[in-house]
Amino acid sequence: MIIVLKAGSTEADIATVEKKVVEAGLKVQKSLGSERIVLGVLGNERKLNKKQILAIDCVENIMPVLKPYKLVSREFKKEDTIIDVCGVKIGGKEIVVMAGPCAVENQKTQSEVAAIVKDAGAKIMRGGAFKPRTSPYDFQGMKEEGLKILKQAKEETGMPIITEVMDVANVELVAKYADILQIGARNMQNFDLLKAVGKQSKPVMLKRGMSATLKEFLMCAEYIMSEGNQNVILCERGIRTFCTYTRNTLDLNIIPMLKKETHLPVIVDPSHATGVRDLVTPLSLASIAAGADGLIIESHNCPECAMCDGAQSLLPDQFKDMMGKVKLVAEAVGRTL
Amino acid sequence: MIIVLKAGSTEADIATVEKKVVEAGLKVQKSLGSERIVLGVLGNERKLNKKQILAIDCVENIMPVLKPYKLVSREFKKEDTIIDVCGVKIGGKEIVVMAGPCAVENQKTQSEVAAIVKDAGAKIMRGGAFKPRTSPYDFQGMKEEGLKILKQAKEETGMPIITEVMDVANVELVAKYADILQIGARNMQNFDLLKAVGKQSKPVMLKRGMSATLKEFLMCAEYIMSEGNQNVILCERGIRTFCTYTRNTLDLNIIPMLKKETHLPVIVDPSHATGVRDLVTPLSLASIAAGADGLIIESHNCPECAMCDGAQSLLPDQFKDMMGKVKLVAEAVGRTL
Amino acid sequence: MIIVLKAGSTEADIATVEKKVVEAGLKVQKSLGSERIVLGVLGNERKLNKKQILAIDCVENIMPVLKPYKLVSREFKKEDTIIDVCGVKIGGKEIVVMAGPCAVENQKTQSEVAAIVKDAGAKIMRGGAFKPRTSPYDFQGMKEEGLKILKQAKEETGMPIITEVMDVANVELVAKYADILQIGARNMQNFDLLKAVGKQSKPVMLKRGMSATLKEFLMCAEYIMSEGNQNVILCERGIRTFCTYTRNTLDLNIIPMLKKETHLPVIVDPSHATGVRDLVTPLSLASIAAGADGLIIESHNCPECAMCDGAQSLLPDQFKDMMGKVKLVAEAVGRTL
Amino acid sequence: MIIVLKAGSTEADIATVEKKVVEAGLKVQKSLGSERIVLGVLGNERKLNKKQILAIDCVENIMPVLKPYKLVSREFKKEDTIIDVCGVKIGGKEIVVMAGPCAVENQKTQSEVAAIVKDAGAKIMRGGAFKPRTSPYDFQGMKEEGLKILKQAKEETGMPIITEVMDVANVELVAKYADILQIGARNMQNFDLLKAVGKQSKPVMLKRGMSATLKEFLMCAEYIMSEGNQNVILCERGIRTFCTYTRNTLDLNIIPMLKKETHLPVIVDPSHATGVRDLVTPLSLASIAAGADGLIIESHNCPECAMCDGAQSLLPDQFKDMMGKVKLVAEAVGRTL
Repeated sequence: MIIVLKAGSTEADIATVEKKVVEAGLKVQKSLGSERIVLGVLGNERKLNKKQILAIDCVENIMPVLKPYKLVSREFKKEDTIIDVCGVKIGGKEIVVMAGPCAVENQKTQSEVAAIVKDAGAKIMRGGAFKPRTSPYDFQGMKEEGLKILKQAKEETGMPIITEVMDVANVELVAKYADILQIGARNMQNFDLLKAVGKQSKPVMLKRGMSATLKEFLMCAEYIMSEGNQNVILCERGIRTFCTYTRNTLDLNIIPMLKKETHLPVIVDPSHATGVRDLVTPLSLASIAAGADGLIIESHNCPECAMCDGAQSLLPDQFKDMMGKVKLVAEAVGRTL
Repeated sequence: MIIVLKAGSTEADIATVEKKVVEAGLKVQKSLGSERIVLGVLGNERKLNKKQILAIDCVENIMPVLKPYKLVSREFKKEDTIIDVCGVKIGGKEIVVMAGPCAVENQKTQSEVAAIVKDAGAKIMRGGAFKPRTSPYDFQGMKEEGLKILKQAKEETGMPIITEVMDVANVELVAKYADILQIGARNMQNFDLLKAVGKQSKPVMLKRGMSATLKEFLMCAEYIMSEGNQNVILCERGIRTFCTYTRNTLDLNIIPMLKKETHLPVIVDPSHATGVRDLVTPLSLASIAAGADGLIIESHNCPECAMCDGAQSLLPDQFKDMMGKVKLVAEAVGRTL
Repeated sequence: MIIVLKAGSTEADIATVEKKVVEAGLKVQKSLGSERIVLGVLGNERKLNKKQILAIDCVENIMPVLKPYKLVSREFKKEDTIIDVCGVKIGGKEIVVMAGPCAVENQKTQSEVAAIVKDAGAKIMRGGAFKPRTSPYDFQGMKEEGLKILKQAKEETGMPIITEVMDVANVELVAKYADILQIGARNMQNFDLLKAVGKQSKPVMLKRGMSATLKEFLMCAEYIMSEGNQNVILCERGIRTFCTYTRNTLDLNIIPMLKKETHLPVIVDPSHATGVRDLVTPLSLASIAAGADGLIIESHNCPECAMCDGAQSLLPDQFKDMMGKVKLVAEAVGRTL
Repeated sequence: MIIVLKAGSTEADIATVEKKVVEAGLKVQKSLGSERIVLGVLGNERKLNKKQILAIDCVENIMPVLKPYKLVSREFKKEDTIIDVCGVKIGGKEIVVMAGPCAVENQKTQSEVAAIVKDAGAKIMRGGAFKPRTSPYDFQGMKEEGLKILKQAKEETGMPIITEVMDVANVELVAKYADILQIGARNMQNFDLLKAVGKQSKPVMLKRGMSATLKEFLMCAEYIMSEGNQNVILCERGIRTFCTYTRNTLDLNIIPMLKKETHLPVIVDPSHATGVRDLVTPLSLASIAAGADGLIIESHNCPECAMCDGAQSLLPDQFKDMMGKVKLVAEAVGRTL
């Protein structure tokens, strides 16, 4: 860590800061510039309470040199993490597509849509049983009944299940049915929930919060991993910007950035990010070209009857067409589908 | 609701949309413009599933005419809601200041700081026992032990307690000690938690999420109120923008906007919003001038020893100085302190 | 246009609004809902001064039905615009790559880099002679001398020139040398400059401003086209968001959205958007996959000697490698390079 | 400047960086940490080309210690700058209010509104003769005829004139009539225009761009001052965020921040920031409470006839009411009106 003192700081000020650093078992290297005094911290800066240093009156600014995350970082683990979900490998050479309706609605729809997307090449089935909805008056999901429908559709199609868990109290229940537990964007920093899914053994897909920085996103993965669960999948699903022509702004810049910073697999959700059906295919192709390991896509056989998010759901033919194009782009960047 | 059809829509398209509207018990008024067909929905548009309308292929855009919230709205309840917390009235003529350290650290600090802020005019004591922290390796709060410390400080000073609850599992425990339950910004859309605090009787202070729109913020208050708890206090604590000279950007525009839209009291948290001690006083004054009903301020007698957020904590003298200035501005806008 | 009146509006209020509408030669269709009165405007709503309607006290909200742009819109002109720049076609089946150093520095560097990028498949040469710099103390460009260097490099390589014009006073001068005039992001809404380049005949590449909405971006193209110049190329170069791991956030969502809304060609600049060399290739591939018609890329044979933006410049080998990958992705989406 | 090298950097890498630093006449202080090598630059870091350092392959990150601006900074000039405009002092103890219609429309309206706002306590008259409009089809201002109307209104009321200049070609013309030249938000980084107004002698009010950081804003003031004109007034007028309930988000955080960083006076424009009449008064009061030196407010005697921005214009009575409240808040914070 670099500590910059305010102009006019005295020897006594330096001593105050130095004392704090030394108390943490670290050393200080002074550099007396013409306009500012700069103190370099020697040793493992993670032992320092940054906010206490910042709270000292003579401190103008601090600049950490090291990243705050450890288990998630590529420095800690060089090779890509590949997660095996009932035989489907996420994070390897093969692009993995997860698909299905936004919400589980009934057995017939879930089973039919699952069969359709499987036929087109999807490997994992999605469907929400617990639904985080903006309005308390909207459909809140079928809960355990929905989980049972997912299980039945899995038995019929052989597809593993990804579904959301919204609360600590339901982690055990959802983990009984799901093959991947999804943490939604609004719960990215629900730290108790992160700890709870970190303590169980099923893989977790963590969706990026709408206003999460790269660091915050990775620190939430670190929360899960620090509890013991190393099978974390990251999911970019759009950030909140001033743009309103899409629901959120899908941030593909983060894909190559995550690939540099972490060994964890990265999935993209263009359906929720954009909220616009016509944008799902071009942004799916762009995601794969940017280096994503897979996609999670909403598809429905009757979008105008869907309980939620029909406007962004691909029709069966559109989904099949998209999969054909994804295959070509995947191959162009040295991947398979 | 106004439904705009895509250019080139046919009679059959109109019929498809009309059928959906009529099924919901509503009527359609057609308007055939030269460039677009526009359908007006007659009746209570809240009965329509907006996403299903948007999912119809010929629909270009929909424009709701009515607001999605009800219980929180000033149309529903004209007069200001005033919440009584152990005799302290929030939302009335008097400005209410809540203050204390960011985290509960030990009995001595909590009691001393509480005495100091009370002496300067604060009416409610803050202190976090459950702490949402960006890093899993940082201090996570003293939990129930912290709650007991708060209770002891309340007995000594007579100040009611506001403290955060992070998880459904702890609502009952926290409600046993706290006089106001705080929902943190990161949990604003933790809908299970909102329902849980909505089912108990203590007042709730709901902090605005970092990327929450006005509508989303009010819909979260609606979640709490729709479960039965009408004592909701709204708290603006900064939004995420491109600006980095403050931790977040305190959004004072929302204060008069909330006052138009809702009858609920509005509190401002300039400490967390800015993260910069020198900005807390000017922005506290600005908040009151903009129409806020109160402030929540971090104060500490030794910021550089604070377990968290010392950099934004006011020293006892600074807090007292701020309170003097708040009083003058409050009086200038027809309020008291 | 739909005009929503405030709750409690009277017949006299309706009459006031109706009078305004009728004065503009349009008609009003009333719809008296249970909670709101809604007035639909019949006729060409573009004739109405929206702000005057909004300024009427009883008006709660207005919702335009029609888009504000005309010449740029795909409704106005269905087929893609293809712009011929000295034989290079922009907007057709072939992906066009523009490349070169950020700033023109000297003849040797410009000619060498031009030869390198041409050899790798670039079709148009870039290089700034007038440089918009954040600091007045930084290198401001070689001005006319730089334009002469570009001309010489064009004579050597046969590559057309794209270069920026920053001010009305220099439009004529720059147009004498350049084959495409570039309007920088900071000048996107420099309306006098837009009018000036609209009055001359060279194609114009308009870069999106850092905080420009889709509508604002297209209205700036409309400014140019309404002066007579129909050869406008749009360029996405990153927007300002809360993310700081890249200089700006490249917004690929806008690519398919622009393709729906306008017939104009779309180019992407991943170099300026990200400011990070390692991200340029993956985001170039993503741009092509999302439907862009071309790229503008910074390349330099000695980034650490570059007068500006070396950190995002591709080395010759990196540029060649990128071009090979772009070719494969272009073919995967049915384009050529 | 602190230079952090990538993990695994070698002695040769250090030497490469050191060579660059030494060439600029500066020295390097090495610090070999366990995880990273950190190089401190000794001497005036402003002499280094930061982007060239960042472009070196082994460099992970650089952290400047010094601010990039000089003439604008409070370190350079401790005491507040007070600007005299025909006897009106901006930046002193007295709050200065500038007011008038958005655009100059005709002599009668301009003169009448000027008389009204003067009567209520405004000291400077506003009115746009050159209007930057989003659409090329909207009213573009009366140009020189508008300037003459302003001059006539000044003769009648004695109020100095503030009006916008949009292009280098018109600086001389506008400066002939105006007492303060306004640079609009969209032109904040029109560097040629900044240089041009920096070369003439009239005071300049620089509006913050919608996505301008504090540093970018101050660097634009530095552009003007570095050309010789020291009379620069800064104006906050709202930033672009995800919020849409106001046109832009007025950022009052920047007020106390600017007061720390610079000696220049700061004015706030709540009319353009919010675009909502009802928000102008509360945010005006908040601006003064936060430490602003003045306000610029749109007022009109017939908002629904205004050529532009009527929706945010205060009616005469509303303006007068606002001025009364501003006076009380000004006095509460030790200022006068």
